[in-house]
Amino acid sequence: MPTDEQPRRRVRVAIVPDSFKGSVSALEVATAMARGVQSASRAHATGDLEIRLSPLADGGEGTLDALLDAWGERARTCATTDALGRATTARYGLSPSGTGIVEAAEANGLPQVSDRPLEPLVADTRGVGTIAARLLDEGASEIVLCVGGSATTDGGTGLLAALGARFLDARGEVLPAGGGNLVNLARIDLSSLDPRARAVTWRVACDVTNPLCGPRGAAAVFGPQKGATPEDVTLLDAGLARLADVVAAEVGIAVDTLRDRPGTGAAGGMPLLLTALLGAELVAGSDLVAQTLGLETILAGADLVLTGEGRFDDQSLHGKVVDAVARHAPSGAPVVVIAGEVAVDQDAMREHGVTAALATARGPRTLAELTATTADDIAYAAATVTRLLGL
Amino acid sequence: MPTDEQPRRRVRVAIVPDSFKGSVSALEVATAMARGVQSASRAHATGDLEIRLSPLADGGEGTLDALLDAWGERARTCATTDALGRATTARYGLSPSGTGIVEAAEANGLPQVSDRPLEPLVADTRGVGTIAARLLDEGASEIVLCVGGSATTDGGTGLLAALGARFLDARGEVLPAGGGNLVNLARIDLSSLDPRARAVTWRVACDVTNPLCGPRGAAAVFGPQKGATPEDVTLLDAGLARLADVVAAEVGIAVDTLRDRPGTGAAGGMPLLLTALLGAELVAGSDLVAQTLGLETILAGADLVLTGEGRFDDQSLHGKVVDAVARHAPSGAPVVVIAGEVAVDQDAMREHGVTAALATARGPRTLAELTATTADDIAYAAATVTRLLGL
Repeated sequence: MPTDEQPRRRVRVAIVPDSFKGSVSALEVATAMARGVQSASRAHATGDLEIRLSPLADGGEGTLDALLDAWGERARTCATTDALGRATTARYGLSPSGTGIVEAAEANGLPQVSDRPLEPLVADTRGVGTIAARLLDEGASEIVLCVGGSATTDGGTGLLAALGARFLDARGEVLPAGGGNLVNLARIDLSSLDPRARAVTWRVACDVTNPLCGPRGAAAVFGPQKGATPEDVTLLDAGLARLADVVAAEVGIAVDTLRDRPGTGAAGGMPLLLTALLGAELVAGSDLVAQTLGLETILAGADLVLTGEGRFDDQSLHGKVVDAVARHAPSGAPVVVIAGEVAVDQDAMREHGVTAALATARGPRTLAELTATTADDIAYAAATVTRLLGL
Repeated sequence: MPTDEQPRRRVRVAIVPDSFKGSVSALEVATAMARGVQSASRAHATGDLEIRLSPLADGGEGTLDALLDAWGERARTCATTDALGRATTARYGLSPSGTGIVEAAEANGLPQVSDRPLEPLVADTRGVGTIAARLLDEGASEIVLCVGGSATTDGGTGLLAALGARFLDARGEVLPAGGGNLVNLARIDLSSLDPRARAVTWRVACDVTNPLCGPRGAAAVFGPQKGATPEDVTLLDAGLARLADVVAAEVGIAVDTLRDRPGTGAAGGMPLLLTALLGAELVAGSDLVAQTLGLETILAGADLVLTGEGRFDDQSLHGKVVDAVARHAPSGAPVVVIAGEVAVDQDAMREHGVTAALATARGPRTLAELTATTADDIAYAAATVTRLLGL
């Protein structure tokens, strides 16, 4: 055991994990890590340990809860509609400083419509817009929209429609809902758009780089998992292309910019109208969470940065929580990942600024066994790291 | 990642694991650890890493191989007999400095006689003595005898018989082999004992503290697993008591000393005659290995002490390799255990001088899956420790 020869000084540990999806929330992970650090820290014994704890998320499932936990706020709920227009209830959040947070899938998610055959041509995002409208009513000055897990390929038309936009065909009739009708789009009427929708700041958390249209576009890549047949994909892709044409004419920019912009193909093209018409910024999910929570401040001066997630793999090093943490960590601070599964080789870790990764298993365990003891195992691993670093 | 602000200095890592029983040998464990340390060490990159590697053992299975590996010697073999007197071949070792090493179970082990019904009353240790005699022929000045896993309860009479001692009944007839006949022992004739058997230094590695006789004795506790019925246990216990009586009279010491001495009940009483007649020292197995290999020298000046074993549990902290390593480690050096299963709480580790323990699993794994990747997982864990310590 290292002897304590240095004069007493404060030891700062930043605890900034993602959730272990399907097992424990980011807050539970963070709490377990803190418990482990405290149990093993010599500085804690002398009152010199300072833990900064902030559960993170990557813009996907769990982001709402992570932000709510960090803000110390409870989730709000509102009545809205699912991707097929049926009544449902959605959770959302609002920070004391006026940042609203919407997980789009609370309204237009695939699970919401899993009780019946998928209808990719008519599914729409109107329910997401209903939540956004509620946030505007509640005084939000910023709306953070996490997309992903959607059942829709409507280019965000439903969302804008909920805020007052009208999508019209050549005869001036309002189009029926859904991406399958967008090939008939002739014009967008924004005269009734809620003015607060333009005044508010939008940020869209998005973890894919797909463009709107074409072989890597929203319809071709994600359509099939939403139930689209090859014919549906063709129709939806043409509809999104048509939407881009109309929007480009509307705002006076080159249509290629809209069609090819990386990320616009996320969630059935939901970012298209938000970015082109409402000035939304597209941000990698984990960066968005990092910005929203002030990750840099949380990590400043840390002697140890502890992060983690259920599965630490190569994806984790590209736009996920661990990547954001490693990029924002102060130079010199070890960044340690605790994960249920560690599937990154050590060279790759090193390149991305991760010092080491520990798996939670303390022996041969099935996934079910491991899931049953995750929190304790996380605490144990955090204690191991603390002891090794002599903190 | 910690920055390298210190001036260059040599980094010393001592690698002193036990085997992962049933999976990889101590040498394979040590080699994997060294590979992991080298892959992650900054000092290695600059040529400033010094690794001292010594596979250890606890006096049980694997001890012979661990010592041979450390000596750089190959195993020798000789013809001998099993516990039922049938011809078999045994492996043994001899160091360049004249230390012979015998795993008794190579001759009198239970597996050797598992092809037929156990015969606890006649099983004897003569084959062990045959190996010892061979070592005397080859010039050994010291014989290290690892007991354990034996099929015998003969008090070591067979062993001594192989070296020339004669165990006689009241009529002066040589007793038939086995503990079942010792109740008829009247006298021990040492006139033909090989004089080299007294001249050589004996050390017996033994990890139990059972006395020779009584409810915690060799027959009562270990007899049943060697096939002894309750009646057999009674007969064997009486035989060992009789043996102690005769020996006590022979050497002029109080019989209680022989009957009650902790450890004499190991391996069917094998240590009794060795200690009482040949001056053998009884040593905890891991301490014996530590002494034989010069563990203290190996660990001196280490910046990190890496050890490990298949299962790290509370037993490990009492007389096993990890315990010996922790006790001999220089103060200030972190002692880190890498194990397939970690089942020790951190307070207990701390009390015993172990800094931290890492399990090898990198996610949910069955025992079979884990066994298939043990060496790589050990290397990975060693790299993790090296990175965390910034070595």
